Amino acid sequence: MTDVTEIDNPEALAGLRAAFERYDRGLDENNVAVLDGSFWENALTLRYGVAENLYGHAEIAAFRANRTPTQHQSRARRLEHTVLTTFGRDFGVANTEYVLLASGRRGRQSQSWVRFPDGWKVVAAHVSLMQDP
Amino acid sequence: MTDVTEIDNPEALAGLRAAFERYDRGLDENNVAVLDGSFWENALTLRYGVAENLYGHAEIAAFRANRTPTQHQSRARRLEHTVLTTFGRDFGVANTEYVLLASGRRGRQSQSWVRFPDGWKVVAAHVSLMQDP
Repeated sequence: MTDVTEIDNPEALAGLRAAFERYDRGLDENNVAVLDGSFWENALTLRYGVAENLYGHAEIAAFRANRTPTQHQSRARRLEHTVLTTFGRDFGVANTEYVLLASGRRGRQSQSWVRFPDGWKVVAAHVSLMQDP
Repeated sequence: MTDVTEIDNPEALAGLRAAFERYDRGLDENNVAVLDGSFWENALTLRYGVAENLYGHAEIAAFRANRTPTQHQSRARRLEHTVLTTFGRDFGVANTEYVLLASGRRGRQSQSWVRFPDGWKVVAAHVSLMQDP
Protein backbone atom coordinates (compact mmCIF):
# COMPACT_ATOMS: atom_id res chain seq x y z
CA MET A 1 0.00 0.00 0.00
CA THR A 2 1.41 3.34 -0.96
CA ASP A 3 0.70 7.04 -1.27
CA VAL A 4 1.68 7.64 -4.86
CA THR A 5 2.16 11.36 -4.31
CA GLU A 6 5.07 10.75 -1.92
CA ILE A 7 7.99 11.67 -4.17
CA ASP A 8 11.44 10.11 -3.71
CA ASN A 9 10.83 8.26 -0.47
CA PRO A 10 14.45 7.44 0.51
CA GLU A 11 13.89 3.71 0.90
CA ALA A 12 11.99 3.42 -2.38
CA LEU A 13 14.56 5.49 -4.24
CA ALA A 14 17.43 3.40 -2.87
CA GLY A 15 15.68 0.22 -3.97
CA LEU A 16 15.02 1.57 -7.43
CA ARG A 17 18.61 2.80 -7.76
CA ALA A 18 20.00 -0.62 -6.79
CA ALA A 19 17.77 -2.30 -9.40
CA PHE A 20 18.66 0.27 -12.06
CA GLU A 21 22.40 -0.12 -11.42
CA ARG A 22 22.14 -3.90 -11.44
CA TYR A 23 20.43 -3.71 -14.84
CA ASP A 24 23.04 -1.27 -16.12
CA ARG A 25 25.86 -3.62 -15.10
CA GLY A 26 23.92 -6.41 -16.80
CA LEU A 27 24.00 -4.39 -20.01
CA ASP A 28 27.74 -3.71 -19.68
CA GLU A 29 28.43 -7.41 -19.13
CA ASN A 30 25.74 -8.64 -21.55
CA ASN A 31 24.46 -10.75 -18.62
CA VAL A 32 21.26 -12.12 -20.14
CA ALA A 33 20.02 -13.64 -16.85
CA VAL A 34 20.22 -10.25 -15.13
CA LEU A 35 18.61 -8.47 -18.08
CA ASP A 36 15.75 -10.99 -18.26
CA GLY A 37 15.31 -10.96 -14.49
CA SER A 38 15.06 -7.17 -14.44
CA PHE A 39 11.96 -7.15 -16.64
CA TRP A 40 8.48 -8.08 -15.42
CA GLU A 41 7.77 -11.64 -16.54
CA ASN A 42 4.45 -10.91 -18.20
CA ALA A 43 2.93 -10.69 -21.67
CA LEU A 44 2.13 -7.01 -21.03
CA THR A 45 5.79 -6.02 -20.62
CA LEU A 46 7.10 -4.13 -23.63
CA ARG A 47 10.38 -2.69 -24.82
CA TYR A 48 10.80 -0.27 -27.69
CA GLY A 49 14.44 -0.55 -28.77
CA VAL A 50 16.44 1.56 -31.18
CA ALA A 51 15.27 -0.48 -34.16
CA GLU A 52 12.72 -2.97 -32.79
CA ASN A 53 9.42 -3.07 -30.90
CA LEU A 54 9.17 -6.05 -28.56
CA TYR A 55 5.92 -7.18 -26.94
CA GLY A 56 5.92 -9.47 -23.91
CA HIS A 57 8.73 -10.83 -21.76
CA ALA A 58 9.30 -13.77 -24.13
CA GLU A 59 10.01 -11.53 -27.14
CA ILE A 60 12.34 -9.38 -25.06
CA ALA A 61 14.22 -12.44 -23.76
CA ALA A 62 14.55 -13.85 -27.29
CA PHE A 63 16.02 -10.55 -28.44
CA ARG A 64 18.59 -10.57 -25.60
CA ALA A 65 19.54 -14.19 -26.34
CA ASN A 66 20.15 -13.45 -30.02
CA ARG A 67 22.54 -10.53 -29.57
CA THR A 68 26.14 -11.28 -30.56
CA PRO A 69 29.30 -10.23 -28.68
CA THR A 70 30.22 -7.99 -31.64
CA GLN A 71 26.93 -6.13 -31.35
CA HIS A 72 27.48 -5.92 -27.62
CA GLN A 73 30.90 -4.29 -28.08
CA SER A 74 29.47 -1.59 -30.34
CA ARG A 75 26.86 -0.73 -27.68
CA ALA A 76 29.35 0.34 -24.97
CA ARG A 77 28.15 3.66 -23.63
CA ARG A 78 28.50 6.39 -21.05
CA LEU A 79 25.42 7.57 -19.12
CA GLU A 80 24.67 11.27 -18.72
CA HIS A 81 22.00 13.19 -16.86
CA THR A 82 20.48 10.10 -15.19
CA VAL A 83 17.27 10.88 -13.29
CA LEU A 84 15.45 8.39 -11.07
CA THR A 85 12.16 9.39 -9.42
CA THR A 86 9.85 7.33 -7.22
CA PHE A 87 6.13 7.87 -6.57
CA GLY A 88 5.05 6.17 -3.37
CA ARG A 89 6.84 2.96 -2.42
CA ASP A 90 6.12 0.82 -5.44
CA PHE A 91 6.54 2.85 -8.60
CA GLY A 92 9.33 4.77 -10.24
CA VAL A 93 10.74 6.05 -13.51
CA ALA A 94 14.38 5.90 -14.58
CA ASN A 95 15.54 8.08 -17.44
CA THR A 96 19.01 8.69 -18.77
CA GLU A 97 20.81 10.06 -21.76
CA TYR A 98 23.77 8.11 -23.09
CA VAL A 99 26.65 8.46 -25.53
CA LEU A 100 27.79 5.49 -27.60
CA LEU A 101 31.56 5.35 -27.10
CA ALA A 102 32.31 3.93 -30.56
CA SER A 103 30.34 6.45 -32.62
CA GLY A 104 29.66 9.39 -30.29
CA ARG A 105 25.97 9.12 -31.14
CA ARG A 106 23.57 10.21 -28.41
CA GLY A 107 20.60 8.20 -27.16
CA ARG A 108 18.01 8.11 -24.42
CA GLN A 109 16.76 5.23 -22.22
CA SER A 110 13.44 5.40 -20.36
CA GLN A 111 12.14 2.74 -17.98
CA SER A 112 8.99 2.44 -15.86
CA TRP A 113 9.58 0.29 -12.78
CA VAL A 114 7.10 -1.38 -10.42
CA ARG A 115 8.02 -3.00 -7.12
CA PHE A 116 6.50 -6.50 -7.09
CA PRO A 117 6.79 -9.00 -4.21
CA ASP A 118 9.96 -10.35 -5.90
CA GLY A 119 11.50 -6.91 -6.34
CA TRP A 120 11.63 -3.94 -8.69
CA LYS A 121 10.92 -4.86 -12.32
CA VAL A 122 10.80 -2.89 -15.57
CA VAL A 123 7.25 -2.96 -16.95
CA ALA A 124 7.94 -0.77 -19.98
CA ALA A 125 11.13 0.54 -21.61
CA HIS A 126 12.01 2.77 -24.53
CA VAL A 127 15.48 3.25 -26.00
CA SER A 128 16.21 5.54 -28.93
CA LEU A 129 18.92 7.51 -30.69
CA MET A 130 18.55 11.27 -31.08
CA GLN A 131 17.48 12.54 -34.49
CA ASP A 132 19.06 15.64 -35.95
CA PRO A 133 16.78 18.60 -35.18
CA MET B 1 -3.67 3.85 -1.32
CA THR B 2 -3.21 1.11 -3.82
CA ASP B 3 -2.01 -2.46 -4.36
CA VAL B 4 0.41 -1.92 -7.21
CA THR B 5 0.21 -5.54 -8.30
CA GLU B 6 -3.48 -5.18 -9.23
CA ILE B 7 -3.20 -5.04 -13.02
CA ASP B 8 -5.76 -3.18 -15.14
CA ASN B 9 -8.28 -2.36 -12.44
CA PRO B 10 -11.25 -1.32 -14.61
CA GLU B 11 -11.78 2.06 -12.96
CA ALA B 12 -8.08 2.92 -13.08
CA LEU B 13 -7.76 1.81 -16.68
CA ALA B 14 -10.80 3.85 -17.73
CA GLY B 15 -9.37 6.93 -16.04
CA LEU B 16 -6.00 6.47 -17.70
CA ARG B 17 -7.63 5.89 -21.09
CA ALA B 18 -9.67 9.09 -20.80
CA ALA B 19 -6.54 11.08 -19.91
CA PHE B 20 -4.54 9.46 -22.73
CA GLU B 21 -7.25 10.18 -25.29
CA ARG B 22 -7.60 13.77 -24.11
CA TYR B 23 -3.87 14.25 -24.56
CA ASP B 24 -3.98 12.63 -27.99
CA ARG B 25 -6.76 15.00 -29.11
CA GLY B 26 -4.66 17.83 -27.69
CA LEU B 27 -1.83 16.77 -29.99
CA ASP B 28 -4.13 16.56 -33.01
CA GLU B 29 -5.51 20.03 -32.30
CA ASN B 30 -2.19 21.48 -31.07
CA ASN B 31 -4.11 22.52 -27.94
CA VAL B 32 -1.26 23.78 -25.79
CA ALA B 33 -3.41 24.19 -22.66
CA VAL B 34 -4.45 20.53 -22.79
CA LEU B 35 -0.88 19.39 -23.54
CA ASP B 36 0.55 21.43 -20.65
CA GLY B 37 -2.25 20.33 -18.32
CA SER B 38 -1.61 16.67 -19.09
CA PHE B 39 1.95 16.80 -17.75
CA TRP B 40 2.82 16.87 -14.05
CA GLU B 41 3.62 20.46 -13.13
CA ASN B 42 6.98 19.74 -11.50
CA ALA B 43 10.68 20.25 -12.16
CA LEU B 44 11.15 16.45 -12.17
CA THR B 45 8.85 15.92 -15.17
CA LEU B 46 10.78 15.12 -18.31
CA ARG B 47 10.09 14.51 -21.97
CA TYR B 48 12.50 13.02 -24.48
CA GLY B 49 11.25 14.09 -27.90
CA VAL B 50 12.35 13.01 -31.35
CA ALA B 51 15.14 15.60 -31.44
CA GLU B 52 15.15 17.24 -27.98
CA ASN B 53 15.49 16.35 -24.29
CA LEU B 54 13.32 18.54 -22.07
CA TYR B 55 13.72 18.72 -18.28
CA GLY B 56 10.96 20.10 -16.10
CA HIS B 57 7.41 21.22 -16.86
CA ALA B 58 8.59 24.74 -17.78
CA GLU B 59 10.93 23.51 -20.55
CA ILE B 60 8.22 21.24 -21.90
CA ALA B 61 5.67 24.07 -21.91
CA ALA B 62 8.13 26.41 -23.66
CA PHE B 63 8.68 23.76 -26.34
CA ARG B 64 4.91 23.39 -26.92
CA ALA B 65 4.45 27.17 -27.10
CA ASN B 66 7.17 27.53 -29.75
CA ARG B 67 5.87 24.96 -32.20
CA THR B 68 4.49 26.46 -35.41
CA PRO B 69 1.33 25.40 -37.27
CA THR B 70 3.51 24.17 -40.17
CA GLN B 71 5.41 21.86 -37.86
CA HIS B 72 2.12 20.74 -36.40
CA GLN B 73 0.75 19.80 -39.84
CA SER B 74 3.77 17.62 -40.58
CA ARG B 75 3.23 15.73 -37.32
CA ALA B 76 -0.23 14.35 -38.20
CA ARG B 77 -0.16 10.65 -37.40
CA ARG B 78 -2.05 7.41 -37.06
CA LEU B 79 -1.69 5.34 -33.87
CA GLU B 80 -1.06 1.60 -34.04
CA HIS B 81 -0.76 -1.11 -31.40
CA THR B 82 -1.66 1.18 -28.48
CA VAL B 83 -1.26 -0.54 -25.09
CA LEU B 84 -2.37 1.00 -21.78
CA THR B 85 -1.67 -0.86 -18.54
CA THR B 86 -2.39 0.19 -14.96
CA PHE B 87 -0.71 -1.04 -11.76
CA GLY B 88 -2.90 -0.43 -8.75
CA ARG B 89 -5.16 2.63 -8.83
CA ASP B 90 -2.62 5.39 -9.29
CA PHE B 91 -0.03 4.35 -11.84
CA GLY B 92 -0.03 3.36 -15.46
CA VAL B 93 1.99 3.21 -18.64
CA ALA B 94 0.73 4.16 -22.12
CA ASN B 95 2.69 3.00 -25.13
CA THR B 96 1.86 3.27 -28.79
CA GLU B 97 3.44 3.01 -32.19
CA TYR B 98 2.53 5.65 -34.76
CA VAL B 99 2.91 6.36 -38.46
CA LEU B 100 3.52 9.92 -39.68
CA LEU B 101 0.92 10.45 -42.43
CA ALA B 102 3.11 12.81 -44.48
CA SER B 103 6.25 10.68 -44.64
CA GLY B 104 5.16 7.18 -43.65
CA ARG B 105 7.92 7.13 -41.04
CA ARG B 106 7.24 5.04 -37.95
CA GLY B 107 7.65 6.20 -34.38
CA ARG B 108 6.91 5.19 -30.79
CA GLN B 109 5.46 7.16 -27.88
CA SER B 110 5.87 6.04 -24.25
CA GLN B 111 4.32 7.77 -21.25
CA SER B 112 4.38 7.04 -17.51
CA TRP B 113 1.26 8.35 -15.78
CA VAL B 114 0.54 8.96 -12.09
CA ARG B 115 -2.90 9.76 -10.66
CA PHE B 116 -2.54 12.86 -8.50
CA PRO B 117 -5.39 14.52 -6.54
CA ASP B 118 -6.03 16.70 -9.64
CA GLY B 119 -6.07 13.77 -12.01
CA TRP B 120 -3.83 11.57 -14.17
CA LYS B 121 -0.62 13.32 -15.26
CA VAL B 122 2.35 12.29 -17.40
CA VAL B 123 5.49 12.23 -15.23
CA ALA B 124 7.86 11.05 -17.98
CA ALA B 125 7.53 10.69 -21.76
CA HIS B 126 9.69 9.45 -24.60
CA VAL B 127 8.95 9.89 -28.31
CA SER B 128 11.24 8.58 -31.05
CA LEU B 129 11.38 7.55 -34.67
CA MET B 130 12.42 4.02 -35.59
CA GLN B 131 15.97 3.57 -36.86
CA ASP B 132 16.70 1.22 -39.73
CA PRO B 133 17.83 -2.11 -38.27
